[in-house]
Amino acid sequence: MVKISQIAIAVPEIEKAKKVFEALTETSASSPHLVETQKVNVSFIQVGDTKIELLEPASDKTPITNFLQKRGSGIHHIGIKVKEFEETIKKMKALGVRTLGDPTVGAEGHRVVFFHPKDTHGVLIELEEDLE
Amino acid sequence: MVKISQIAIAVPEIEKAKKVFEALTETSASSPHLVETQKVNVSFIQVGDTKIELLEPASDKTPITNFLQKRGSGIHHIGIKVKEFEETIKKMKALGVRTLGDPTVGAEGHRVVFFHPKDTHGVLIELEEDLE
Repeated sequence: MVKISQIAIAVPEIEKAKKVFEALTETSASSPHLVETQKVNVSFIQVGDTKIELLEPASDKTPITNFLQKRGSGIHHIGIKVKEFEETIKKMKALGVRTLGDPTVGAEGHRVVFFHPKDTHGVLIELEEDLE
Repeated sequence: MVKISQIAIAVPEIEKAKKVFEALTETSASSPHLVETQKVNVSFIQVGDTKIELLEPASDKTPITNFLQKRGSGIHHIGIKVKEFEETIKKMKALGVRTLGDPTVGAEGHRVVFFHPKDTHGVLIELEEDLE
């Protein structure tokens, strides 16, 4: 079954954002932790199948920093998790949707790839492989 | 239990967007129908608890038209559904989060209110009352 695995939100101050999204969802957020490879601090709130992920730049040279400078706080990307990873990419490509580079292996051992937001109606989408 | 009830995406051409999100989610979208009060055509894909809603302006004077002109296609708002509707608004207000006007009654008889996106880190959020 396909899942909306994440809604990732770029924020300049994670502690402030954490309070707002905790109040909104009546759910505790995880303590912010540094994801070294991306140079971002991440805190998440699990709501059903979906993680609301708050992303705060931990350096002044990250994609999140660029996003904040250009567009301000807001939704950075959404994650969709599917069992048929390669098949989904094929179907998307058949519709003219480009990937941003080749798939890489994510933190939990599953494959991930981003689609070009120009081809997905302005929504940056991370496709994740569901290994469960 | 709190739910992410919707991810609403503003698009200029709903039929094109429908194909992309159907391929992405391996799920059929509903046939676009006109929501007369909002002057938008809506098609949705149900993924777990969440509807991915595609919104296409049906008039040149809608909030969606403005959004598309200013920012282009992309996520317009997300919906969060809670049982404790009034309590959640109180908690949000205590954090300095303003609502956009007073709650109104939605299509299915439940109350809805939007929060000011400047106070929710750039994410336009529709709070929905869960009557189930």
